[in-house]
Amino acid sequence: MFQKNCWYVAAQASDLGRELTQRWITGEPVVLFRNLAGQPVALEDRCPHRRASLSKGTLIGDTVQCGYHGMTFDCSGSCVRIPGQDQIPAALKARAYPVVQKWHWVWIWMGDPALADEALIPDLRYNDTPGWTVTGGMLVVKANYQLLTDNLLDLTHETFVHTKTIGNAAVAETPMEVKVVGNEVHVQRVMRDTPPPPLFKRVRNLTGHIDRWQIIRFQPPCSVSIDARGYPTGSEDLELGLRWFSINSITPVDARTSHYYWTITRCFALDDQEVTDLIHKQILATFMEDVDVLEAQQRLIDTDTRQVAEVSVKADFGSVAARRIVQRLVEQEAK
Amino acid sequence: MFQKNCWYVAAQASDLGRELTQRWITGEPVVLFRNLAGQPVALEDRCPHRRASLSKGTLIGDTVQCGYHGMTFDCSGSCVRIPGQDQIPAALKARAYPVVQKWHWVWIWMGDPALADEALIPDLRYNDTPGWTVTGGMLVVKANYQLLTDNLLDLTHETFVHTKTIGNAAVAETPMEVKVVGNEVHVQRVMRDTPPPPLFKRVRNLTGHIDRWQIIRFQPPCSVSIDARGYPTGSEDLELGLRWFSINSITPVDARTSHYYWTITRCFALDDQEVTDLIHKQILATFMEDVDVLEAQQRLIDTDTRQVAEVSVKADFGSVAARRIVQRLVEQEAK
Amino acid sequence: MFQKNCWYVAAQASDLGRELTQRWITGEPVVLFRNLAGQPVALEDRCPHRRASLSKGTLIGDTVQCGYHGMTFDCSGSCVRIPGQDQIPAALKARAYPVVQKWHWVWIWMGDPALADEALIPDLRYNDTPGWTVTGGMLVVKANYQLLTDNLLDLTHETFVHTKTIGNAAVAETPMEVKVVGNEVHVQRVMRDTPPPPLFKRVRNLTGHIDRWQIIRFQPPCSVSIDARGYPTGSEDLELGLRWFSINSITPVDARTSHYYWTITRCFALDDQEVTDLIHKQILATFMEDVDVLEAQQRLIDTDTRQVAEVSVKADFGSVAARRIVQRLVEQEAK
Repeated sequence: MFQKNCWYVAAQASDLGRELTQRWITGEPVVLFRNLAGQPVALEDRCPHRRASLSKGTLIGDTVQCGYHGMTFDCSGSCVRIPGQDQIPAALKARAYPVVQKWHWVWIWMGDPALADEALIPDLRYNDTPGWTVTGGMLVVKANYQLLTDNLLDLTHETFVHTKTIGNAAVAETPMEVKVVGNEVHVQRVMRDTPPPPLFKRVRNLTGHIDRWQIIRFQPPCSVSIDARGYPTGSEDLELGLRWFSINSITPVDARTSHYYWTITRCFALDDQEVTDLIHKQILATFMEDVDVLEAQQRLIDTDTRQVAEVSVKADFGSVAARRIVQRLVEQEAK
Repeated sequence: MFQKNCWYVAAQASDLGRELTQRWITGEPVVLFRNLAGQPVALEDRCPHRRASLSKGTLIGDTVQCGYHGMTFDCSGSCVRIPGQDQIPAALKARAYPVVQKWHWVWIWMGDPALADEALIPDLRYNDTPGWTVTGGMLVVKANYQLLTDNLLDLTHETFVHTKTIGNAAVAETPMEVKVVGNEVHVQRVMRDTPPPPLFKRVRNLTGHIDRWQIIRFQPPCSVSIDARGYPTGSEDLELGLRWFSINSITPVDARTSHYYWTITRCFALDDQEVTDLIHKQILATFMEDVDVLEAQQRLIDTDTRQVAEVSVKADFGSVAARRIVQRLVEQEAK
Repeated sequence: MFQKNCWYVAAQASDLGRELTQRWITGEPVVLFRNLAGQPVALEDRCPHRRASLSKGTLIGDTVQCGYHGMTFDCSGSCVRIPGQDQIPAALKARAYPVVQKWHWVWIWMGDPALADEALIPDLRYNDTPGWTVTGGMLVVKANYQLLTDNLLDLTHETFVHTKTIGNAAVAETPMEVKVVGNEVHVQRVMRDTPPPPLFKRVRNLTGHIDRWQIIRFQPPCSVSIDARGYPTGSEDLELGLRWFSINSITPVDARTSHYYWTITRCFALDDQEVTDLIHKQILATFMEDVDVLEAQQRLIDTDTRQVAEVSVKADFGSVAARRIVQRLVEQEAK
């Protein structure tokens, strides 16, 4: 059901240290930690002996000691100690997952380790580029991850869901251009000479009309970055305006739960903590509005016994294209 | 499983206004509101576009605007606006349900709208008759609706469940007469020269023995009205006694949850608010005793793996007859 | 799935009186009470009339009156009263279960009553032997009962789970001897000249090294008694040391819930309430550590879609043998 041979965000880099941390990803429990060298490590969070939770055990140097019977595993998942027994059966091995820290986050490869290629990590470079300031977080959402990627690929909803921050009538009224480029989907909406939404006004004192750009890039299966720009109409001068990337990667916890990793990374007012705090607070409130809508949507999908086909409109081109790509990748993997 | 071509209570008339209200009925989500003319309207509470919850949207005049992408529907469920798109696909239509306000309540027809006939609304006229004062409410019960109709068709349980209000030994000891009349079941119990139950004493100062009548009428699938009378033994004078209708309609939310709509409507002490308050409080307490019994019963049914057949007694004639009628109506509908 | 023709603990003897008490055992609801003579009685907690919960009814002498319609049953489950009806159908019978009070607990036979033989109650005599003082309790654990018997048959885990009370390195390092004797499993671990664990020190002032014995006896399907001894190294003098039995019987409530009945019964400081309180508090804390581990383990088993075979080690010989015995008994019963 989920693509496995791909990278998912397992944690914010700043959240991972020398504590054993449990995360569920594509329905599997994972224990995460940093080794003594500071590199992230991930093992299946089920002891191969009796399926106890390794994350309830103890991190000793570069090994994890199960908190139940003391079986101890190194970072490759090999068992290095069985209390009271010298011989270690070869089968007593915890599954290890490839993990890489990149772009502000820790990524995990849930499929065949032999296929794990760091070059396949989605390009979210603006999370980690000199001259850009990042703020962000992680939200637990009781909805399938694709409801979140749908959401991000059609920003029409800003007009109806986010009227207090980033939405106004202009968004819904302006058509989008959608392009499929390989396995990516690119969606662009350019709103010329429109009133700025409330948050833009507060952050950049944009009181007059603006030209507003939303350049969306979907990288499968679940990363969406949005290049958002707004500057005084006709000026084309980002110095006078706002530019940030809204960078989003949504990790499927299971079919009905997601971990929503998000950042806003901006190239203005770099050291202004007040601006950072304002953006963080307002965007978090904005995403909580989405959570409310999406969790209700998930419930209505789960209870839909009639299963009448959904009716798509033009604004859905991007999300429909993205779902098709993911569907194809999942099917290819199944072969 | 549920009869669909019939009327269910969707709301108390007084609870429905210009707010979008979600109700689940026979497993389906419904959004209810009153149009500008004050008439009740019901649509499926799933946007046909992406199954968002319409009840989280906005009521604008006589239209509902989805709170996600702004699709807007009129009272017939027709889409009248797609933001950013002129052409409206014919398939983009919200299901509309026939609704009628009658007898104190708002009724909804969950089946084929072409068959909806207002004349089929159960006759609960005493909820809305000059010379009668009504009090009532709605309870959420975690039990199948038929456990509630069973309960109301065999008032023997008053003796054991409702000793503080309307039950005493006389009820269980007195046999009932049961008649099936078309699709209705009529149950009658006449208790002559018996002590009045506690609530009768308090409401009407009936201290001596009384003749007590319970005339029950079941109208399928889920309405039960009880003509309750008590007057000094032999007097046959309702002026000296008590007469009220206990009117009940139980709407299946799903197979294990019900909305229990109830009223007590009386023809004495019409303007006496103290009497109204006393009856309301005591009857509510009485029904909460039922809720406790019925929810435990539902749990024991759900967990019954042995499924030994229930053993019926004479007092069950009414409820067994009522279940047979509903069973037959459901089967007819399935054809 | 569960053995039915065997005795399970239904209650602590001291917890059962003249109140109707509901317990779920092997997935079945049971109502327990003492009759006027003080003997424990058990009926299925589903009224054969309409499956109401008898435990919500009333105990009247040696009969249980259903709290819904007043059907009344004697201690054999026979119906002795139907309100308003003289004739009692033979089928209207509540299932009665054999029950016996023995060894501090009340035991119930969930299978064929004809096979119930008191001699088959597990031998847990030290719960009720002159010269021994008992303290204990019951814990609700959200885990299959066999995870608890596994736990008790491999005390290696004391080293890792119970470091504050009864565990130290010596336990895990010392090998066990396992013997299968008929349908029983006997596991013995003798730790010579080892430091005493923290609780032993506190209870018996054992400051120097000790010889420590653990003699475990499994009686199917779910009773484990542990003869625990510790005395100054080489002294073989229990007067100077500690001896108690840890007696455990784990009743399956359902496949994922257990009632864990436990006692510590000791033959020293018999009347010292402070010692009793210390042991009770510390052992309860110890078992709560197990609960935490086992409930996490159950969750990881339930969610394990890959179902890779567990890898056993030497320390598992006892628990593997015990599971085989139970498996065989369940299969024999199925024939």
